[in-house]
Formats: sequence, structure tokens, C-alpha cells
Amino acid sequence: MAKVRVASYAVSLDGFGAGPDQSLENPLGVGGPELFAWFFPTRTFQEMHGGEGGDTGVDDEFARRGFENVGAWILGRNMFGPVRGPWPDESWRGWWGEEPPYRVPTFVLTHHPRAPLAMKGGTEFFFVTDGIRAALDRAREAAGGRDVRIGGGASTIRQYAEARLIDELHLAVSPVLLGRGEPLFQGLDWRALGYECVRHVAGEKAAAHVVLRRTTP
Amino acid sequence: MAKVRVASYAVSLDGFGAGPDQSLENPLGVGGPELFAWFFPTRTFQEMHGGEGGDTGVDDEFARRGFENVGAWILGRNMFGPVRGPWPDESWRGWWGEEPPYRVPTFVLTHHPRAPLAMKGGTEFFFVTDGIRAALDRAREAAGGRDVRIGGGASTIRQYAEARLIDELHLAVSPVLLGRGEPLFQGLDWRALGYECVRHVAGEKAAAHVVLRRTTP
Repeated sequence: MAKVRVASYAVSLDGFGAGPDQSLENPLGVGGPELFAWFFPTRTFQEMHGGEGGDTGVDDEFARRGFENVGAWILGRNMFGPVRGPWPDESWRGWWGEEPPYRVPTFVLTHHPRAPLAMKGGTEFFFVTDGIRAALDRAREAAGGRDVRIGGGASTIRQYAEARLIDELHLAVSPVLLGRGEPLFQGLDWRALGYECVRHVAGEKAAAHVVLRRTTP
Repeated sequence: MAKVRVASYAVSLDGFGAGPDQSLENPLGVGGPELFAWFFPTRTFQEMHGGEGGDTGVDDEFARRGFENVGAWILGRNMFGPVRGPWPDESWRGWWGEEPPYRVPTFVLTHHPRAPLAMKGGTEFFFVTDGIRAALDRAREAAGGRDVRIGGGASTIRQYAEARLIDELHLAVSPVLLGRGEPLFQGLDWRALGYECVRHVAGEKAAAHVVLRRTTP
């Protein structure tokens, strides 16, 4: 059965999914890239960005599985870009250049309407203004029986978790202190929401991979 | 040089050092024992409690090192027991029976004076009512050049970290969601306090061991 899942989502020891002060220069917030020390060297990441080689192993397996059987993505608006408020124009086309790594319909949560945006390689961005459930309905339909992956950021994941709409999360706990940033867990009782850790594996580089699953409805 | 350190302190994925609702029945709070799945099977823990055997390896090495060269301990009052407010009498003698595992002078932070309490095996509890710095001064003096170990709980560790008085922390990040409990990181900017992760090792059982050190004064 198709799942709604989060994958390859890195969190710091102190529970942040991104650093503070996101900007054009710091898409992951200040210090954010430190969370991805496990991800950048993988073959999956290297191939996504047109590179060759890259490491295989546990880290790469988790990275690769994150993309398998995904029929649609959902992203929070800040994961799509640094623009806040109404779109001043259509010039911002995402952080990823003309060929984003999604390659399927990708639904961006926003309060501000905007026309769909077709990119190279199969990614088409749709801007959804009527809430997380509407976005999930559209993503499920677009996914045609495959999984829906919720890309992030932390606020988007929290909203879906709180609504008990996420089936599974793969988190990469990174040995980094960010101090400030976007909290994933804080103030949300994940245990009461029905989640538990069903798997944990040490990666090669740095991260501890954990899989959380909603085991009570 | 003698250090002030925290060791074998377990935290959940969602950042709690103990579960909620500590009581006589739940010294570690509800769900708290799940944090110690890595610790209970170690030879160090088994020997502490008069058992034989127990596992050796990474988990045990961290557990063992936590006790090496320790000349004094500091505990928060809730780590000493479930009694709140003024001591009604002297009947509460700690969670550990007549022979606690500390075996050196152990300073308990409290707002309520109480006479020192000598136990079997070398542990003597001293009740300190004039604050964390006074407790540390007394612990340092008692330790005679050896390390001072801050046992916990979370609130005690946070107070010492915020005062930049902890040199090093070994945390065991456990693949468990507690949902609620005693937060270690939340609301405290550990990075700004000068801490960074200097080491990370996967344990055999479940925990990811990380060592945080204060690298900027």
C-alpha cells in the first residue's frame, strides 16, 4: 500500500532539521549543511547532481530508498525558496536550477497563489493554497498508487505528523549541535501521536539512521 | 587536568534525559528505562550491582570510562529521590539501597538542608543548599585532583552547561521516542555555549555514543 513518508531527513543532536537564518546564501540555515555530511558523499547524491562515483553502503542505501517508488512530493514553501509573502513575480524557480531532483509532481504549500511551474526532467511544481490535507489529496492522486514523500522542512513535517498523516520517517541523526534552528520534535508529543522507532542502523560517515513508524492509529 | 564531566547520560531521539512523571515506581520517569537498553547489559553495570558477566565492547567501554578517575559526584535532588520540598525526616536514603554505586563524596543540590549521610562502600551524600557553584567548589575539593562527574538529571546538567562549567559530556543517544519528559537541549543554545561534537561511535546495542566538548571558552 502506498505510504506517506519522510526520508533522509537529517536532524542535529539538539533536534533541529535546519539551522537558523535561512537565506539565499544559506538555504539550509546557518550550519545546516553540517547535517548532511553523511549524504553528500553518497552515490545517490552524486548521481542526482550529475556527478560520478560516490560511496555505496548503508548511507547510500538509505539515500537511494528515499527516492524509490515516490510518485509525488510535498514541500513547505521555505524548502522551495527564500521568498516570503506574496510572489513578487515568477522569477524564483526553486533552489535546484532548471532540473530539480524530484522528477515527479511536487506540491508546494503556500498562502499565495501561483501558476504551476514545469521544469526539466519531469518535475512540475504546483502551488497549493488550501492546506496540508488538500495538498496530500492532490499528491496522492498524482502519485498514482506510489508513495508520497514529504520533503520538509521541519514545520511541514510537524504539521503532517500532528495530523497523523505520516506513515514512516527515516531520520539521519547527525553528530552536530546547531544551537538554534528549525526544531523537529520540540513541543510535539511524537509518542502520543503513535510513533515509535522500529529500526536503527549506524551509517558509515556520521549519522545514526533511525526509522520511525506510526504503529498505533 | 581534572575535568568536570557528564558521562553515560542517555537521551531520547526527541531530546529527553528522562521520561515524565517521576515517582517512587518510576525513578527514570515513564518510559525512562528504555533509554538505558545499551547500559543494563554492560559488564560495568552488572558489576556495579553485584552481578557477574555482562557484555564488553563499545557500550561497556563508555560505561566503564564514566567511572574512571572520578573523585566526586554532583546530583540534582530528583536524581537522589522522589521527595519534594523540605525533608520530612531522614528516612529516604537514595534510590540505590545501602551501598550506592558512587563510592566517593556525592553532593546533592537541594533547597532544604539536611545532615550528611554516609553509606556503605564509600559513598557519602552531602546536601548543598547554596547553589551549583558552591557544590562544584566542594566537589572539586573533595575530588582531590580527580574529575567531578555530574550525574544529572537534565535540569542539573543544563544549569552547569549554561554556566559553562562542564568540560565534556558523553551522551548515549537512544533510538526511543519519549514524547514528554526532561529536556536536555531545548531552549539552550549549546553551540553558542561553546560545545561541539568531537567524537561519535555506534554502540553494539542501540545507542549512538557522542562526546561533546566545550572547545571555545
